[in-house]
Amino acid sequence: MNTMLEAASLAEAVRAGRLNPSEVVERCIAAIEAQEAEIRAFATLDLPALRTAASRPGLDATPLAGLPVGVKDILDTADLPTERGSPLFAGYRPFGDASIVRMMARAGGLLAGKTVTTEFAFMQPSPTRNPRRPSHTPGGSSAGSAAAVAAGMLPLAIGTQTGGSVIRPASFCGVTGFKPSFKLLPVLGLKPFAWSLDTLGLFAARVADIAFAMSALTGRDLALDADPATPRFAVVKTARAAHASDDAHAALEAAARAAADAGAQVVELELPAEVEAGDAASAVVQAYEAALTFADEWDRHRDQLSPTLAAYLEEAQRTAPEQYDAARRTSRRARNALADTLHGFDAVLTFSAPGEAPEGHATTGSPVFNRLWTLAGTPCVNVTGLTGASGLPIGVQVVGRFARDKATLNAAHFLERAIATR
Amino acid sequence: MNTMLEAASLAEAVRAGRLNPSEVVERCIAAIEAQEAEIRAFATLDLPALRTAASRPGLDATPLAGLPVGVKDILDTADLPTERGSPLFAGYRPFGDASIVRMMARAGGLLAGKTVTTEFAFMQPSPTRNPRRPSHTPGGSSAGSAAAVAAGMLPLAIGTQTGGSVIRPASFCGVTGFKPSFKLLPVLGLKPFAWSLDTLGLFAARVADIAFAMSALTGRDLALDADPATPRFAVVKTARAAHASDDAHAALEAAARAAADAGAQVVELELPAEVEAGDAASAVVQAYEAALTFADEWDRHRDQLSPTLAAYLEEAQRTAPEQYDAARRTSRRARNALADTLHGFDAVLTFSAPGEAPEGHATTGSPVFNRLWTLAGTPCVNVTGLTGASGLPIGVQVVGRFARDKATLNAAHFLERAIATR
Repeated sequence: MNTMLEAASLAEAVRAGRLNPSEVVERCIAAIEAQEAEIRAFATLDLPALRTAASRPGLDATPLAGLPVGVKDILDTADLPTERGSPLFAGYRPFGDASIVRMMARAGGLLAGKTVTTEFAFMQPSPTRNPRRPSHTPGGSSAGSAAAVAAGMLPLAIGTQTGGSVIRPASFCGVTGFKPSFKLLPVLGLKPFAWSLDTLGLFAARVADIAFAMSALTGRDLALDADPATPRFAVVKTARAAHASDDAHAALEAAARAAADAGAQVVELELPAEVEAGDAASAVVQAYEAALTFADEWDRHRDQLSPTLAAYLEEAQRTAPEQYDAARRTSRRARNALADTLHGFDAVLTFSAPGEAPEGHATTGSPVFNRLWTLAGTPCVNVTGLTGASGLPIGVQVVGRFARDKATLNAAHFLERAIATR
Repeated sequence: MNTMLEAASLAEAVRAGRLNPSEVVERCIAAIEAQEAEIRAFATLDLPALRTAASRPGLDATPLAGLPVGVKDILDTADLPTERGSPLFAGYRPFGDASIVRMMARAGGLLAGKTVTTEFAFMQPSPTRNPRRPSHTPGGSSAGSAAAVAAGMLPLAIGTQTGGSVIRPASFCGVTGFKPSFKLLPVLGLKPFAWSLDTLGLFAARVADIAFAMSALTGRDLALDADPATPRFAVVKTARAAHASDDAHAALEAAARAAADAGAQVVELELPAEVEAGDAASAVVQAYEAALTFADEWDRHRDQLSPTLAAYLEEAQRTAPEQYDAARRTSRRARNALADTLHGFDAVLTFSAPGEAPEGHATTGSPVFNRLWTLAGTPCVNVTGLTGASGLPIGVQVVGRFARDKATLNAAHFLERAIATR
């Protein structure tokens, strides 16, 4: 497997004239040609178009410096098919680009290809393989985005998370994944699954690369502080701690120890029941909304849905409006109680996933440690650097406070360094 | 002009076997054929398809009893073109139906046609004429939906509101308009303008027809109470009261008097500055989000936007993320302060629009009395029955508490009766 490509350093080299965008693209293409046949990270590639795009003058002065970016195939692109992981949309060409694709283009990023999504970003496994060990799942649903970055094929990729579709594959593939605060990145042009939960996210090699890309995409100051304050971490195992494997527990403990050794305040914290209730509520919210967002596919194209999705939607349609309303109230209370609970902390330190990437390709793994934070809308980072018993990556998750994305990235960066230097 | 068609009574007659769906459709078609050449409420009509749909057996047993429904042409329909009021989308056929269109079909409603929207539901006037007086604007952006119901062409029509695009045309055309609580109706398949504001709404003859249709569409209990409690109204003129014409003030006072005479508690109330601040914040929120939702049209098809929209988007793009964040905080505070302010009241009674429908077709009128409530996400009803100096309708607006849609409709119904019997 190729080394991961570090977006921030590459962009700096391009801006300094030490590298040009075409050379970056050729590195990516070499890695893609060497590995794509096995990894299958891409739903669509147009390498000649990418080469042409990289030769456009002036890219070196743009925020993204002409870096190629993978876009999950659940997001609309006018220039490449948008198949949504479903035979129903084979060859489908949307009218226009998703907002995030335009933001990327405006910032000087190049559309490198569409990365594989599971069917409509749900649970049916995709053909993508885990670059760390192809006999294991890369996770889902942003399988191709995580794998492309892990394999060094791309420095950046865009994904989405409704349950755990950014943080889980990031953990399994050993890349940095970032789910920003809810609605910080616009979802326009995303095929929706559940509008209260659908969130865009990013994959990159390291936290610095995420902070660089988020700043470049949004025009916000989300850069890492040169000399950040020492963070105060609340270690949270959640009511679902029993789902975490021994090595996931060991990784979380190692991360907490590394943070403490580096000077961070690290306190174990139990979430109040009001917060924990958000986990079950998220399943209800997702089901009710999915039954409506997939109304057209269900009514008119049911035979083209996977049995996994069809069974889910059939059950989802039984969710009564009153159950949904109650779940939304529970969600609101969970968000408010979480904000109160985290008073005095910069971030939560918790599991990214139940353990190493499961062997085989029958499932994409479990979002059990992600749903609550997706519902809460809080920024989440999968931090790399630790491994499990079999040598595969096990990420740890830094969860910040809502709308404190910069502080969250700083805390994640602190932890990443602490883990690397422990 | 034909008499308006009352959806609830028609559906009851169909269910009781006194009328069949084809007869209802023929009434609509007769009204359409008599008036559409002048009113131009429809972007697309397929009357043969409507006739065929009405002959489907079993419709009389469905919640909507086979009533024909107009769908604003900003919402996706697989079976009819979806042109969004823009030459850019001339002949465009989306892949699937908007969720609300599926909800309508599942409830036994028939797609009667696409009703005219202004360009992308913004401010550029449409060709639609006001059925009450064709030399005056019907308002916008849901011009065709309001006009089709006002002209007795349809018993029900779906619209959308980002600023004042349901309540304003309802007031100008003298129909009942309803903007439910934010997200009560799903926006999937709506061409977005500003995701924090875009809200679906309904047009019908009277409040009872809205309550009937909302219940049928959503499966929720939003029916009117047989014996409703006497509502407590807060009469609110807002900081923008000077924008209301003398006859708008007279109408609001007449409505307040009628409500009081009918036994309601009616108290004049000034909104705290924190609530009023939501009005200015809504402009910032809308601008920032519109600049992103129209990123594709701006970057790739700018020459096909109207000068009105292009100028708006050019300015909108100057909205900095920090201004947006501040406006969102202001919005949140305004929502919370409004909830506190309305403690002890069932609804606000306020202006629907600055006055009668303006003469001519150079503008669609002003959303000055709508934006705050759209931002607040509260249910709003335009209540009919009053007229201005020139004899055109002037609606009054009942604004309920968030998620209290049933209570809001009951309060609006009380007011409607009080006005009718004063």
